[in-house]
Amino acid sequence: MDIAILIYDGFTALDAVGPYEVLSCLPNAKVHFVSKEPGLKRTHTKALSLSADYTLTDLPNPDILVIPGGTRGTMAAAKDETILDWIKKAHATSKWTTSVCTGALILGAAGILRGLKATTHWCAKDYLSQFGAEYTNDRVVQQGKIITAAGVSSGIDMALHLAGEIAGKEMAQVIQLIIEYDPKPPFDSGSILKADESIIELAENAVKREFE
Amino acid sequence: MDIAILIYDGFTALDAVGPYEVLSCLPNAKVHFVSKEPGLKRTHTKALSLSADYTLTDLPNPDILVIPGGTRGTMAAAKDETILDWIKKAHATSKWTTSVCTGALILGAAGILRGLKATTHWCAKDYLSQFGAEYTNDRVVQQGKIITAAGVSSGIDMALHLAGEIAGKEMAQVIQLIIEYDPKPPFDSGSILKADESIIELAENAVKREFE
Repeated sequence: MDIAILIYDGFTALDAVGPYEVLSCLPNAKVHFVSKEPGLKRTHTKALSLSADYTLTDLPNPDILVIPGGTRGTMAAAKDETILDWIKKAHATSKWTTSVCTGALILGAAGILRGLKATTHWCAKDYLSQFGAEYTNDRVVQQGKIITAAGVSSGIDMALHLAGEIAGKEMAQVIQLIIEYDPKPPFDSGSILKADESIIELAENAVKREFE
Repeated sequence: MDIAILIYDGFTALDAVGPYEVLSCLPNAKVHFVSKEPGLKRTHTKALSLSADYTLTDLPNPDILVIPGGTRGTMAAAKDETILDWIKKAHATSKWTTSVCTGALILGAAGILRGLKATTHWCAKDYLSQFGAEYTNDRVVQQGKIITAAGVSSGIDMALHLAGEIAGKEMAQVIQLIIEYDPKPPFDSGSILKADESIIELAENAVKREFE
């Protein structure tokens, strides 16, 4: 089972690494970090680079696509015809096509969310309608073989859900225990449905700056 | 505020990237990925490399140390005198010294967990006593300025806790919302206190293989 995780300059590391850590535990899975050109891709904070060992042309037909999000770099990727063309073709034969955070905007730009429910980072929700998708405020949204996840950290939940679909509930539980995913956030402000208005405003200001 | 995240061949990506994603949102924080030699460090799965932009000697006195875990590579790092010496000296002046997963064994080998309560990946809990530390089955264990976190994904909770200590509860909540950390795992098997015996046995077999 070939898994392709797309990276590009300006992606958000946890969007990619959350699903990677889960999916790399699947039996017979081979995870490939792919990008348009091989080499180092810098994250949106610029403090870190991940290496793409493979190019898009190395993996034309992955079984699973994972498209992470980011900020400005994601907007650029969503206009990159080489990336969009690869996604369209890979999606035609994939078993699963997934996104995390604003990675949904790249799937949307590739035209594969039209008429579907989808999710993305709460701060980017208004973009989804441009691509004919309907924003749904769930952490993980599955529509057939397409699964979109909400912001950044939600890729872990998405990948565990996907692991259950692929390898069964028992294996997914084993993976959850291997990564000791028994979350205990010290606060309860991880969703706009739960955070105080003042917290939402501060977070929105911080994130929107990153898109400008 | 200088944050040093140690990486080395065989580290677990999410151990490092979880705290990175949280701590890089702190005001005036500069995250540095550091290693003994600069360059690419391969994760324990071998499917991914992260780049260390800095060496240990570039960051002798970080304000915050983050030591991620892994499997075989962590055992090697815990015997590497250059790494241990850097940790000892950095810890002498740090404001916070933290570990994720088996990163605690590196802190232990550096001699800084003696007489303290600490946590690590559940599968490595028996190692802690070798370093004079007492394993505590909590997700995040704070002892003064030393904070240890449980397995892999727990670094996110640890870093949010730390963000609250450093920048206050409001800022930590803003960061939680930025990374949309409203976890909803599809199963409830992320802790040995919750998982079925059969799941624990399968996970233990899978993880222990990685240490051999």
